[in-house]
Amino acid sequence: MTVAVYLPSEEKTHWWVEMLQGLLPGWDIASIEDIKDRAAVKHAVVWRPRPGDLATFPHLEVIVSIGAGIDHVLADPELPADVPIIRTVGDDLTQRMREYVALHVLRHHRDMPRQLQAQAEKDWHAIVVPVAPNRTVGVMGLGNLGAAAAETLSGLGFATRGWSKSEKTIQGVETYAGAGTLDAFLSGCEILVNLLPLTDATTGILKADLFGKLAPGACVINCARGGHLVDDDLLAALKSGHIKQATLDVFHIEPLPTDHPFWDHPAITVTPHVASQIDAATGGRLIAANLKSFAETGTCPDMADAARGY
Amino acid sequence: MTVAVYLPSEEKTHWWVEMLQGLLPGWDIASIEDIKDRAAVKHAVVWRPRPGDLATFPHLEVIVSIGAGIDHVLADPELPADVPIIRTVGDDLTQRMREYVALHVLRHHRDMPRQLQAQAEKDWHAIVVPVAPNRTVGVMGLGNLGAAAAETLSGLGFATRGWSKSEKTIQGVETYAGAGTLDAFLSGCEILVNLLPLTDATTGILKADLFGKLAPGACVINCARGGHLVDDDLLAALKSGHIKQATLDVFHIEPLPTDHPFWDHPAITVTPHVASQIDAATGGRLIAANLKSFAETGTCPDMADAARGY
Repeated sequence: MTVAVYLPSEEKTHWWVEMLQGLLPGWDIASIEDIKDRAAVKHAVVWRPRPGDLATFPHLEVIVSIGAGIDHVLADPELPADVPIIRTVGDDLTQRMREYVALHVLRHHRDMPRQLQAQAEKDWHAIVVPVAPNRTVGVMGLGNLGAAAAETLSGLGFATRGWSKSEKTIQGVETYAGAGTLDAFLSGCEILVNLLPLTDATTGILKADLFGKLAPGACVINCARGGHLVDDDLLAALKSGHIKQATLDVFHIEPLPTDHPFWDHPAITVTPHVASQIDAATGGRLIAANLKSFAETGTCPDMADAARGY
Repeated sequence: MTVAVYLPSEEKTHWWVEMLQGLLPGWDIASIEDIKDRAAVKHAVVWRPRPGDLATFPHLEVIVSIGAGIDHVLADPELPADVPIIRTVGDDLTQRMREYVALHVLRHHRDMPRQLQAQAEKDWHAIVVPVAPNRTVGVMGLGNLGAAAAETLSGLGFATRGWSKSEKTIQGVETYAGAGTLDAFLSGCEILVNLLPLTDATTGILKADLFGKLAPGACVINCARGGHLVDDDLLAALKSGHIKQATLDVFHIEPLPTDHPFWDHPAITVTPHVASQIDAATGGRLIAANLKSFAETGTCPDMADAARGY
């Protein structure tokens, strides 16, 4: 049972190797760099694999994505066809995303950026905002993370909508399904949260046309993938004032290059892909459990659907 | 039925007079400045009444506090004894406080002050924090607002404690009652939220001794009254690092004087008493309903207990 591990950081790769060795005694686990017998590798555990790497394992049975998304695996043009992919999702990841979404929706709702600006000016300026039940918040994408985020926002009292490809029912959330309902979902939406999977259909979905359909002065939170956002369209919408503020956790290039205009834009909050980061302890437990299940039964609860892209 | 209205701002007083006139047709409602026949005044609706003002109404039957606290009324040394006081509490006030507490607990939990500092330095620096179930948050004061805040924090996943004078039971919250349990409540507490009423027993409760009992690096949120906090003790605890950050919505003097060290302290967030501000529309409806109930039945659900101080 050889398991090959790869992350872009060598240091992190070694953490993960040691973590998994402790959790899967008797398994042969190594950094992809240290694999001698490529034919022995049955399992690969990866984050942003280098294009072509996975194709060098002729007997690969399963690929584990260290994260909820599989877009970073599917991005490999030489990805071996028909090798199943396991996502890593768990209570901790869902919990962290709920926290991030609640925090940033509340920050925009209560206009903390302007409140902090008032403090910097020693200005005792009370910003009056509606109560949450009079504030319409929309969540795009109602998978594990999106559904939990929408439920949390509804629990905080917001008038909450959710939009997804297929129909979903979530307590306290007004749900919309399919491309035909997108305009109705966006209309009147004051704070938009993107938690869609990154697929061909959703790449670049956060663009001028979509921004124009939101309520004037709306705020946008992207905690899915950088590829969902057309950067220049956001900058233009902020300049026009139709979008008031944005919080971005994900970017086309990560780390976000230091010369990117998002870094010092006064209406943009940048966070370094931390909305729902997996820590080695939690992720290790989830991945070990999924690998064991897959080795014994040929499947596990977190199998991704590569055809759908998530 | 003469109702005298007073708030420190003349403009706001006029808003409230007009609002109440619309809601209580047939009642005689006027600014305290415009009252000619002081003996006709049976009801006073006030925020921070001027000392001695209320004593000039010989037939006063009830005082309405425009807010959940009554400390600003009890602060009048000439307050007529035995005139009952009605608090103004309502779903909107509770909702706004839930939002404020959730927002600021999450801000400290995810260390947004440091995250924003990293953005200012264009530093792609992921701050790793525990998930909310591994974070202990304590709410002092479990009245309407405190209980709702604690329940909300528990709903967000935090390990939530509550402390109050008398025993309370709140879903998902570990409750402590009475002075004898305060040390146990504080021990290990990483984020402390104060929502106590301001009474002789609670004045200055947020002091060096209490800060020392919190977990090292704890954060403090005061959204009750400025009188709860010993300002210099907080500054010293921040300097020593035992307290990491604080968010303050209330102050000994409001507006906070521009030369006060809280304004530009890097570890203090100042908000201008907005945690649960009452707007005239909502507050007017609540006050009109309470005044009608009191006029008809001699009581209403929001009667305060002046002997307890809240």
